Amino acid sequence: MTKNQKHKSALQEKEGVSSPDFLSQTAAKQIKNRRKKQPSAKILVNGIKEGNITALGRAITLVESTNNKHTSKAHEVITGCLPYAKKSVRIGVTGVPGVGKSTFIEAFGSYLTSIGKKVAVLAVDPSSTLSSGSILGDKTRMEELVKNKNAFIRPSPSGNSLGGVARKTRETIILCEAAGFDTIIIETVGVGQSETAVHSMVDFFLLLKLAGAGDELQGIKRGIIEMADAIVINKADGENLKAAKSAKVEFNRALHLYPSKESDWTPKVSLCSALHNEGISEVWQLIKDYLQVTTNNAYFETNRHQQNEYWLLQTIEERLKADFFDSKKIKKALQRQMELIREQKTTPFAAAEYLLNL
Amino acid sequence: MTKNQKHKSALQEKEGVSSPDFLSQTAAKQIKNRRKKQPSAKILVNGIKEGNITALGRAITLVESTNNKHTSKAHEVITGCLPYAKKSVRIGVTGVPGVGKSTFIEAFGSYLTSIGKKVAVLAVDPSSTLSSGSILGDKTRMEELVKNKNAFIRPSPSGNSLGGVARKTRETIILCEAAGFDTIIIETVGVGQSETAVHSMVDFFLLLKLAGAGDELQGIKRGIIEMADAIVINKADGENLKAAKSAKVEFNRALHLYPSKESDWTPKVSLCSALHNEGISEVWQLIKDYLQVTTNNAYFETNRHQQNEYWLLQTIEERLKADFFDSKKIKKALQRQMELIREQKTTPFAAAEYLLNL
Repeated sequence: MTKNQKHKSALQEKEGVSSPDFLSQTAAKQIKNRRKKQPSAKILVNGIKEGNITALGRAITLVESTNNKHTSKAHEVITGCLPYAKKSVRIGVTGVPGVGKSTFIEAFGSYLTSIGKKVAVLAVDPSSTLSSGSILGDKTRMEELVKNKNAFIRPSPSGNSLGGVARKTRETIILCEAAGFDTIIIETVGVGQSETAVHSMVDFFLLLKLAGAGDELQGIKRGIIEMADAIVINKADGENLKAAKSAKVEFNRALHLYPSKESDWTPKVSLCSALHNEGISEVWQLIKDYLQVTTNNAYFETNRHQQNEYWLLQTIEERLKADFFDSKKIKKALQRQMELIREQKTTPFAAAEYLLNL
Repeated sequence: MTKNQKHKSALQEKEGVSSPDFLSQTAAKQIKNRRKKQPSAKILVNGIKEGNITALGRAITLVESTNNKHTSKAHEVITGCLPYAKKSVRIGVTGVPGVGKSTFIEAFGSYLTSIGKKVAVLAVDPSSTLSSGSILGDKTRMEELVKNKNAFIRPSPSGNSLGGVARKTRETIILCEAAGFDTIIIETVGVGQSETAVHSMVDFFLLLKLAGAGDELQGIKRGIIEMADAIVINKADGENLKAAKSAKVEFNRALHLYPSKESDWTPKVSLCSALHNEGISEVWQLIKDYLQVTTNNAYFETNRHQQNEYWLLQTIEERLKADFFDSKKIKKALQRQMELIREQKTTPFAAAEYLLNL
């Protein structure tokens, strides 16, 4: 197998993620016929505009590709899709493992499609790799939603750098919006830096919690509660219900101690049982309330612009840093300067100047 | 008046901040004799090592100078002082205007000197300028402490960039430690980014609050409560006492909802009336408890190393960014790219690449 063939086969394997059930028959044929040679950017853009899921899947695969040859074509597809990326609602969902994110998204996504929404579910999980299984990778966890014609589920792109994963996800959002998905759910696990990245690409940030589990807090990163637009306490059923209710009181009290948000939105605490499909429509009502507040005061648009600015500057900063610190000479000198600081022979500022002058 | 003379006179004016009361008479003479020509780095270092306050004041002025000619000499003084910068406790104090920071520091600092400590009080306030009056600039606000032989008070260095102000303060800490000050208090106003900078240069971070004033929270930046090692509710006296006590209960409850800190220290809530000198020794007891916990688990040292690393990398990053964004060409192109993003004609990532390739 040549390197090229290997790559193609990897591409085809990944495309399997977008289930053939979703295909309109003619579109499917058109794309399938071109499977042997890659469809052009124009064909992909046209397919996406028509809501063709196979075209969307292939375009996402292109965006996710680490092959340099694909970069300009990916760029062409994204630019082609941009004018059709109509306004959607982007919702971030985070919570520690075990809190029931998949069950919640399954119930929430199914509810949204039942009221006429088209839902795309993406994930940001920089630790995941193709082999070790990314979040959302196990599609059986969303049995119902995966069969739903108005839902599109895509696992976290592989990659070790959060910046890379975040970029791919941001671009995938554009493609999904151009394909007609009006509600984008982005799942992330509440550890590390990934939820900050997700917070910076969504309109509404939802923190899933468990009732009464004080220890469950230990696993979650500092600052997440402050980011949340809603705290939804899951598994609020049966014996848990009482604990969930008192957790709601506690969180409401705690949220009062926080300064008000730039959005002028007061974060809400809500109960649900994703497993029993209870409290799900209430979450959507919360989000609708949020959209009303932030549309009226123009924060919704302001926030999107700020996010764009953030990602522009962030990308530049990361590249500047990478270019500097990836140099072998700097790496070696940096280590030495750190030692000198430790031995109190230089200060961080003098060391920085020394390194910059190298 | 020549430019040089003007500068000298400005230097002399600033030195007035270190009150002549502090001087040992011989040292004072030695330094004063050299006032017309600047004392050498060696003389300054020797003076500082002997605990001479005038030498300390002049060295700080040198560090704060924006005159390029002073840079290498300032560097020499700092490097000379580094080996003598013995371990001190660095305490950050923040809170919104009106919470009583100056009164608290006056009471707290006086208490510390009464138990044999040598206390330096510095400030970080990037918005201050020489003319508009920096925090701590109004020395009458600390009448007692300013006359105290075992206290040294220095207002915030002038400057508009937080990075510059923070750097000067960090270097001033070294000078104060070399001069024998074992307790360094760094005051900052709880707005903007300055308290994050202060948090990254202290061992213990103390948030001052008022009792019962719910609105007072509005002025404080998100994330500050999570940084605090202690929340001290000030003005807990007279009619306020009841409200202060219930605020203490509320904050304690809220703090339980936060994940545990890397230091393994559980933040404490304490009451005080700085005006009536009540609850002041309790704050010091808290800090002593903290020092015990973090010395035992080695977090104290780990944190200092992490802070050094943070400032080293931070300084490099800021310079890389400044070098890039200060270019006229980039500034113009950046504006254009932001417009294109707004018009949905490009993405933040494509724009970043375009700018980096310029």
